Amino acid sequence: MENRTEISTLGEFGLIDHLTKNNEIKNSSTLVSVGDDAAVIDHFGKQTVITTDMLVEGIHFDLMYTPLKHLGYKSVVANLSDIYAMNAIPTQVTMSIAFSNRFSVEALDEFYDGIYAACDKYGVDLIGGDTTTSQKGFIICVTAIGEVAPDKYVTRSGAKKADLLCVSGDLGSAFLGLTLLEREKKVFLETKGVQPDLENQDYIIGRILKPEARKDIIEFFAANEIRPTSMIDVSDGLSSEVLHICKQSNVGCVLYEEKIPVNDLARRFAYKLELDPTACALSGGEDYELVFTLAQSDYDKIVLNEQISVIGYITEKEEGTNIITKGGNKHAITAQGWNAFK
Amino acid sequence: MENRTEISTLGEFGLIDHLTKNNEIKNSSTLVSVGDDAAVIDHFGKQTVITTDMLVEGIHFDLMYTPLKHLGYKSVVANLSDIYAMNAIPTQVTMSIAFSNRFSVEALDEFYDGIYAACDKYGVDLIGGDTTTSQKGFIICVTAIGEVAPDKYVTRSGAKKADLLCVSGDLGSAFLGLTLLEREKKVFLETKGVQPDLENQDYIIGRILKPEARKDIIEFFAANEIRPTSMIDVSDGLSSEVLHICKQSNVGCVLYEEKIPVNDLARRFAYKLELDPTACALSGGEDYELVFTLAQSDYDKIVLNEQISVIGYITEKEEGTNIITKGGNKHAITAQGWNAFK
Repeated sequence: MENRTEISTLGEFGLIDHLTKNNEIKNSSTLVSVGDDAAVIDHFGKQTVITTDMLVEGIHFDLMYTPLKHLGYKSVVANLSDIYAMNAIPTQVTMSIAFSNRFSVEALDEFYDGIYAACDKYGVDLIGGDTTTSQKGFIICVTAIGEVAPDKYVTRSGAKKADLLCVSGDLGSAFLGLTLLEREKKVFLETKGVQPDLENQDYIIGRILKPEARKDIIEFFAANEIRPTSMIDVSDGLSSEVLHICKQSNVGCVLYEEKIPVNDLARRFAYKLELDPTACALSGGEDYELVFTLAQSDYDKIVLNEQISVIGYITEKEEGTNIITKGGNKHAITAQGWNAFK
Repeated sequence: MENRTEISTLGEFGLIDHLTKNNEIKNSSTLVSVGDDAAVIDHFGKQTVITTDMLVEGIHFDLMYTPLKHLGYKSVVANLSDIYAMNAIPTQVTMSIAFSNRFSVEALDEFYDGIYAACDKYGVDLIGGDTTTSQKGFIICVTAIGEVAPDKYVTRSGAKKADLLCVSGDLGSAFLGLTLLEREKKVFLETKGVQPDLENQDYIIGRILKPEARKDIIEFFAANEIRPTSMIDVSDGLSSEVLHICKQSNVGCVLYEEKIPVNDLARRFAYKLELDPTACALSGGEDYELVFTLAQSDYDKIVLNEQISVIGYITEKEEGTNIITKGGNKHAITAQGWNAFK
């Protein structure tokens, strides 16, 4: 970065004006946006869906290998994914950030470039937030708002016995991308001057640094009149998400290891690192795919969609939550996903 | 505090269950609350109002003299105040927190006691949030949601020439309370063992540690069919808020120093510290009173309400934004309110 403008030269309100000067409204439901005590939204008879996430430097992200533009993009996308996981359409976001004085206006511009890129891609409006200082590091809190036709939202608690257990896309790549970045960071720190070797690993690195939310899957559901019985997005890993659905729906499940979708490039990289690709999918997290359950009668509607895999089925609660391995063994599913409190 | 339970004994989901186990839903508009990817709200044809704030330990609050219960209460109230400032009724909040390992489950319980106390008092539901760790200090991000009848919201930009400039309650006390607490902290740190002298200063200390939002004023407006032409809440100080209204409404104003309401106890304490009570009101902030403008034809409706003071009037933009001092001098209003970036 060539230029460095100190935040203090703008002040809080000047900074907000600067960061939001090109902010365009895309949704007619956005009545009042940035610049008042609060924003106003009119969802015209729809129901409002809302979610929020806090991301802390050093806990959730490492600026050594995370470009600020990607971080802004991902902060928004991770929240939109939660809105899609309710079978809703995201319409607005608010963005609150706190940062220490090591950040310049140019650095924040990069971060906001990522925010606006995500807003453009997903058709959502940035309608407010807060900008303040921190004593240490960069802290982000995003709230996303969406809309859904009355009572068409999908929670985690509606899975029924014999429903199909499904997942979109593929799993484990984000974790493998993170593992690669952490490995190259370590090499770089230990051997000054050695540049990171990220060759041919665009796919897994893209999955961790610039994930996408599955807008297409929600649109596919709407176009084909599919309403999942339960749904959740993959933030902590497949095991954790499946257990959430089973616990909140008061059911059990059988999951087939061989059915879990893993990308070929990711699988090869996992073997190179002597990691089990299935373990990466089960415990990795941050894939932002959708895990959902469907009535069996909807099977015909999804069978031709290559972005949807049936990975198991729902059972009575008493049968437990189990995975059948490729070798035919049955194990209880345990959540070993990401835990900020470990 | 006698007991100390480590957060790690509960884990993230256990902690969320623990903190929200007594969470009661008060609004029929709350369809899905804590425990899913997102919450769902149905405002039954009303418009949705949304605001968010981030609070950082060491920047916005000092835990040396801020009880966690009060902090929880104030975090919610400050956001509800922004909803009221839109002439709307708050209905839901989300609460995201990040904290270092020096916080115990009991400490978070105290913080949540304050959150629930505010939710009870103002009739709002806690519907979601995020709990995570920080590398340093306690970070809070609150989002508040409210509702307003279609197009009855009030922004900062509707003030018209000849409108009355009004304020609720009294101003400057929160700043004086903060000044007292900072003074006693300094004495305590410099002279170990000397207990703080806060006698007879309950009013100003209450104003900084446990502020209230002016729900009553918004209810008064509704009962008397008053719709302010513009409105803002006092978070940064009267000067800053009046300048926001004038800038966004493209108008000027005349403000009379002698009309600015200051509490008697606060005034006496200001003189004791050789501070100008007017300066405390203009630049102090955190009073969470409402500053608003009214058509002159509404004057009869507010004249008997002792909680509302007329402090000036709106002029053409070209006349500037001025204050007439008690001595009869005219000065341009300057914002010297709180600035996190100074």
